[in-house]
Amino acid sequence: MTTTPSTLDVVAIGNAIVDVLVQSQDDFLSSHGLAKGTMALVDQEQAESLYSAMGPGVETSGGSAANTLAAIAQLGGKAGFIGRVRNDQLGSIFAHDLRATGALFDTPPVESGPSTARCMILVSPDAERTMCTYLGASVNLDPRDVDLAMVRSARVLYLEGYLWDAEPAKRAFLAAAEEVSSHGGEVSLSLSDPFCVDRHRDSFLELVRNHVDILFANEAEITSLYETQSFEEAVSQVRQHCRLACLTRSDKGSLILQGETTHVIEPFKLGQLVDTTGAGDSYAAGFLYGYTQGLSPEACGQLGSLCAGQVVTQMGPRSQVPLKELVAQHLPDLAKA
Amino acid sequence: MTTTPSTLDVVAIGNAIVDVLVQSQDDFLSSHGLAKGTMALVDQEQAESLYSAMGPGVETSGGSAANTLAAIAQLGGKAGFIGRVRNDQLGSIFAHDLRATGALFDTPPVESGPSTARCMILVSPDAERTMCTYLGASVNLDPRDVDLAMVRSARVLYLEGYLWDAEPAKRAFLAAAEEVSSHGGEVSLSLSDPFCVDRHRDSFLELVRNHVDILFANEAEITSLYETQSFEEAVSQVRQHCRLACLTRSDKGSLILQGETTHVIEPFKLGQLVDTTGAGDSYAAGFLYGYTQGLSPEACGQLGSLCAGQVVTQMGPRSQVPLKELVAQHLPDLAKA
Repeated sequence: MTTTPSTLDVVAIGNAIVDVLVQSQDDFLSSHGLAKGTMALVDQEQAESLYSAMGPGVETSGGSAANTLAAIAQLGGKAGFIGRVRNDQLGSIFAHDLRATGALFDTPPVESGPSTARCMILVSPDAERTMCTYLGASVNLDPRDVDLAMVRSARVLYLEGYLWDAEPAKRAFLAAAEEVSSHGGEVSLSLSDPFCVDRHRDSFLELVRNHVDILFANEAEITSLYETQSFEEAVSQVRQHCRLACLTRSDKGSLILQGETTHVIEPFKLGQLVDTTGAGDSYAAGFLYGYTQGLSPEACGQLGSLCAGQVVTQMGPRSQVPLKELVAQHLPDLAKA
Repeated sequence: MTTTPSTLDVVAIGNAIVDVLVQSQDDFLSSHGLAKGTMALVDQEQAESLYSAMGPGVETSGGSAANTLAAIAQLGGKAGFIGRVRNDQLGSIFAHDLRATGALFDTPPVESGPSTARCMILVSPDAERTMCTYLGASVNLDPRDVDLAMVRSARVLYLEGYLWDAEPAKRAFLAAAEEVSSHGGEVSLSLSDPFCVDRHRDSFLELVRNHVDILFANEAEITSLYETQSFEEAVSQVRQHCRLACLTRSDKGSLILQGETTHVIEPFKLGQLVDTTGAGDSYAAGFLYGYTQGLSPEACGQLGSLCAGQVVTQMGPRSQVPLKELVAQHLPDLAKA
């Protein structure tokens, strides 16, 4: 058991998942009824059937909030993760990869029941990713898994919207949000996926209005939340609800809304677009790392944009390039020793 | 159980391994007593200790002969593999990735005992790879695992020298070599690693002199085999022993020795050098695919050189680019519909 430092920059709660990345043609998606660019939940039988039909894969630790947390730790932030794996080979891989970034991860692996979660990620020739997730052991995350001492130590608690798909995880999520708020920390949420928003719109709206300090969403997610076709309309609504809203727009960069102020952040184009997996997670990492270092919203946005710009030039959701070196090279004014 | 076609182009016997690729600095190698560029065998305890100390990894199916076989299948060859996994998550990944190339793989997974083999591959900033292998279930491959019907159906039986590190695997290897020879097939061997050659020099020499039709080796391996500092001296010796010897020389390309004739094959430089893992395996794949299609030694060498040139521009031992498309693009005269 690692001792939790008195203060962590970010604590994240999310699904603990190992990704299986496969290059895929779009006709494979349509013949398997998959909606390109989104995340679908599958049961074990569907997962096995899809896996059998897929091409050769590459495995890498994933999970949306876990990807963000790993990148924060690699940037130099003090970071802790809460999520559930089983005591199997994929669970060991997940735990190793997270701890190897310097992050704390002490949620005990479960000894029985479903295996560690897997996400099959089909990467199309245009670099868009389509995900099918078997939640396995992760779906049973419940309030007892939440290390409240770790949560209390966080300046920012980061939560992924995907957790909302499981009732006990949702309760764990709410308990943690209350805990951090009542100890002076802030709550940050990623909306995760437009279909996920669609499944849980009312409770996400309540959360965004009353509990979330820093929101992350892309265009599809924020327009889904406010049930509007118009991005501008969604912008004007979310502005009223969160202190900071970071809206990512793929190759158009991002907007950071802070009250009536809008910070426009340019994208970083660091190479050929290979795989968009982890772009949003990496953006949130750069932003939250900067935020907990006390940087301005523009600087936080630039860090987010840089991390996202890097991860889309490679396969997989976690940068193969050391993020500290990336910052030193591209944003030297923001790099710390 | 898949029905074995009446003729397979290549059947390979090798260790069934899942690779864990980690980017690493050279001081990590020296502080863990690892010889850069080579393969060391580790026991379970050493494997776990090294894994704990390593950075975040990426998992991909590996195994030297299995990499070659997977690439032959992707090139369009009819291919079958014999090797041992356990019935665990990594074993399922290994089997999936091989079958997804179109290769046959029917060796039954073992139900108990050590887990599926893992190879920790530390990739240095200069792209050289250093490997630590925990052989696990693979080490117990024995003659009963060898599907002799599959072996008999092979035009070429391909064997990796690494198998020599386990006595029952060595017996399996020899039984298969005799079977294929007595049915008119040919025997091909990769020397695998200079330290492996050093451990088994006498029996490799006997094998090369009396049983091997097509030999693959790099400079370090062939000079180790003949205990000479001089590559030229090794060339003049091996020329007497095998009908075809393919000697790879990293960025200097390769030589194909055929009796007194020497074919000089230029390297393909397809991008920045990222990771040399799988370079030799990919060369053997291109060569053997061409060979079983009836191409000339030069054409076979060019195919080998192209596949190796591709795999070193990415992390991991199996090409992320479809190999058929690669051949169509770079060697259109050798591409088949």
